[in-house]
Amino acid sequence: MEQLTIVKVGGRIVEEHDSLQRLLADFSKIDGPKLLVHGGGRSATQLAEKLQIQSRIIDGRRITDSETLKVVTMVYAGLVNKTIVAQLQALHLNALGLTGADMNIILSEKRPVATIDYGFVGDIKRIDVSLLSDLIRRQIVPVLAPLTHDGKGMLLNTNADTIAGEIAKSLARSFDVRLIFCFEKKGVLRNESDDESVIAEITRSSFETFVSQGIIRGGMIPKLENAFDAIRSGVKEVVITQASEIHSGKGTRII
Amino acid sequence: MEQLTIVKVGGRIVEEHDSLQRLLADFSKIDGPKLLVHGGGRSATQLAEKLQIQSRIIDGRRITDSETLKVVTMVYAGLVNKTIVAQLQALHLNALGLTGADMNIILSEKRPVATIDYGFVGDIKRIDVSLLSDLIRRQIVPVLAPLTHDGKGMLLNTNADTIAGEIAKSLARSFDVRLIFCFEKKGVLRNESDDESVIAEITRSSFETFVSQGIIRGGMIPKLENAFDAIRSGVKEVVITQASEIHSGKGTRII
Repeated sequence: MEQLTIVKVGGRIVEEHDSLQRLLADFSKIDGPKLLVHGGGRSATQLAEKLQIQSRIIDGRRITDSETLKVVTMVYAGLVNKTIVAQLQALHLNALGLTGADMNIILSEKRPVATIDYGFVGDIKRIDVSLLSDLIRRQIVPVLAPLTHDGKGMLLNTNADTIAGEIAKSLARSFDVRLIFCFEKKGVLRNESDDESVIAEITRSSFETFVSQGIIRGGMIPKLENAFDAIRSGVKEVVITQASEIHSGKGTRII
Repeated sequence: MEQLTIVKVGGRIVEEHDSLQRLLADFSKIDGPKLLVHGGGRSATQLAEKLQIQSRIIDGRRITDSETLKVVTMVYAGLVNKTIVAQLQALHLNALGLTGADMNIILSEKRPVATIDYGFVGDIKRIDVSLLSDLIRRQIVPVLAPLTHDGKGMLLNTNADTIAGEIAKSLARSFDVRLIFCFEKKGVLRNESDDESVIAEITRSSFETFVSQGIIRGGMIPKLENAFDAIRSGVKEVVITQASEIHSGKGTRII
């Protein structure tokens, strides 16, 4: 099967003109078919502040009320997504900006209210990549914003890491998928205070050892659990690396 | 050739939830392949006001400075476009929201500064509908926002009527295209004060007679010139009608 590289990028990188341009130039150097999933960074929060919409955050998670959903749609699907598309076109990549609502790619359902009502947040129910696969084969570079839809007319805010993982799993049926998560460090570190102590490769069994030794902990555990889940579902390789290394192959490989 | 209906809608209709829902329901009743081109109405102006960005208007035309371009990208390509896509999906149309930058469909160039600098406004240079035609044949319903790109990384604001006309002409090579412009009246009127005095059909020669008699005048003249231009370039029929009549075929037919 043909190789497909999926890159997930978020945070500060997409917020700032210079870092975004560098990232897209590096992305354009990746050989063969590729797909980009982006978050929106803090630009949505900034716009919400200017519009005096209060961002409610519970347990570190933003609550998406209807006004926040509008802001997120404007910033993620509008400004960030189309700026990336125009810049990739200038790099001679035939980009196509998408949300999960477009071509009905990602159907989700509004997260049920348990203890917390997250608002207009969607959990992925079904992915359809049939048309997307054909477009990728025709040299289209899809650029996915972190929005999905419920099939009843409602857009929903969906985590970009989750979208990247689920899209990778679905496309693994048609391509040899390599999934790259951009990270602020050079990879998963053996020693948090030493930026050079990158663990080159993590397997399921070494992961369990690292966790039991306390070397891998905190937010990195669910990130790696998701990576192993992708591998189990047919994704060939997951890489956690710095934005500047997405075309070099350096970083931590999860296999 | 297969028939394709292109509908251009703008103004108040896309601004208000209820009128937009009615329009999309009517649009979904049109038989066969279809494509929607939308403007953004005054929602961009409203957002610019909230953000305290001054909208400069010269000779009735908005000047698109870099802050206004951001607002227009957020509102047209983000909020309006993706809201329409999600609602069409609920009506079982497989919508795909696009700007001219996506799949490099519409390349434009920044309007040269003559007497007035319109800012980030693009005049269409080249249209490529090869992938778009294939997607339409595969039951995709494209939804076009009024933005194009210059191929050098810049998005540009482009008039939605012009986009509708130019896309219609390009697609006329692959489809029997019917182009419908939504209008606030029931069609072109013989008597401005009588809403029922719709002229059913206008040919090139009757147009010239109507103009010489002063029956057709003002802003309607360039609108109809564009319609005749589309017909000359292979578009089968241009219809000017009310939003509520887009699926009935009523209104003024330009042939």
